[in-house]
Amino acid sequence: MYIETLTQFKKQLGQLDKWLVTASEYAKSRNFDPNVFLTLRLAPDQFPLSRQVQIACDTVKLAAAFLTGKPAQPQEDNEATMEQAQARVQSVIALLDGLTPADFDAAASRVVSQPRWKGEWMTGEDYFIQHAVPNFFFHLTTAYAILRHNGVAIGKRDYLGAQTKRPPAA
Amino acid sequence: MYIETLTQFKKQLGQLDKWLVTASEYAKSRNFDPNVFLTLRLAPDQFPLSRQVQIACDTVKLAAAFLTGKPAQPQEDNEATMEQAQARVQSVIALLDGLTPADFDAAASRVVSQPRWKGEWMTGEDYFIQHAVPNFFFHLTTAYAILRHNGVAIGKRDYLGAQTKRPPAA
Repeated sequence: MYIETLTQFKKQLGQLDKWLVTASEYAKSRNFDPNVFLTLRLAPDQFPLSRQVQIACDTVKLAAAFLTGKPAQPQEDNEATMEQAQARVQSVIALLDGLTPADFDAAASRVVSQPRWKGEWMTGEDYFIQHAVPNFFFHLTTAYAILRHNGVAIGKRDYLGAQTKRPPAA
Repeated sequence: MYIETLTQFKKQLGQLDKWLVTASEYAKSRNFDPNVFLTLRLAPDQFPLSRQVQIACDTVKLAAAFLTGKPAQPQEDNEATMEQAQARVQSVIALLDGLTPADFDAAASRVVSQPRWKGEWMTGEDYFIQHAVPNFFFHLTTAYAILRHNGVAIGKRDYLGAQTKRPPAA
C-alpha cells in the first residue's frame, strides 16, 4: 500500500507542478506578476498558496521519512517565485524516485511521534492513513482551489492526471 | 488497505456532517438562510457545494460497490437543504457500517469499468488508488474550502478529526 500510494502522490505532485506552469502562463497572458499567486488565499486566516505547496511537499517528505526510517532533510520555507515553488515540488518527486518497495517493509509497525505530542505516538499505518494521506490531499486540493478561484483554467483531469486504463478484452 | 481507508473515509464523512452543522449555525447567527451555502462555488464554472457533497458521497458509494461486487443503490441528486445534504452523507456512513473486511477479499483484482470508458477497464487496486482516493479527498476538501471561503469557522482539526494516538511508554 505504501509504495503504491506514494507513487500516486508522486503523480499528483507532477500535476501540481503543471498547475503552477499553467498559472504562470495565465499571469503572463494577463500582464500580471505570476508570483502574486503564491500570496493568495481563500480566507484571511488561511495559509497562502506558497505555504499550501510547502505543507503538501513536507507531508510527503515526512511520511517517507517516518515510514522508511531515513531522516528527512530540512528545507527552508522561503519560496517567493513560482519557479522556486516548482523546485520544491520537484525535490519531493526526486526523493520518492530514490525509494524502493523494500524501504517500506517495516512501515506499518514503525513508531511515529513528534515533539509536540508529549510522548504520544502513532503506528506507521495509523499515521499514514489518518494523517499523511488526508493531509496531503487537503493541501494539494487547497492549492488547486486557490488557483481555480483566481481564474486559472485547470479542471478535474488536471487534478487526477493519467489513470491506468487497460484495453478492452479481445 | 481497503477497509482501513474506507474507515478513514467514514470518519471524514462524519467531519463533513459536522461542518454542515457549523455552517448552518453560523448562518442562523448571522440571520441568513443556511441553504444558500449549497449554491456557493469558488469559480463560476465549478460545481456548487451541493454537488461537491453529492460527488464526495458517490465516490465512496461507487468504490464500495466496485470493490465488493455489491451493486450501488441509485440516489436522486436533489438535496436543497443542509439537512438533506447531511442525510446524504449519513446514508454513505450507514452503507460503510454494513461492510466487513471479508467483503473486500477480492477487491484488488476486480474489474472496474464504466459505460463511457468504451470497454477499457481498471483493476480494483488501480481504481481505488488512482481514482477513488484522490477524487474523494478532492470533493471533500473543495466542500471545506467553499465553507471556509464563506466565513465558516472550521480549521484543520475539523478536517482531520480524531487520530489514534497511543499513550507514552511507561
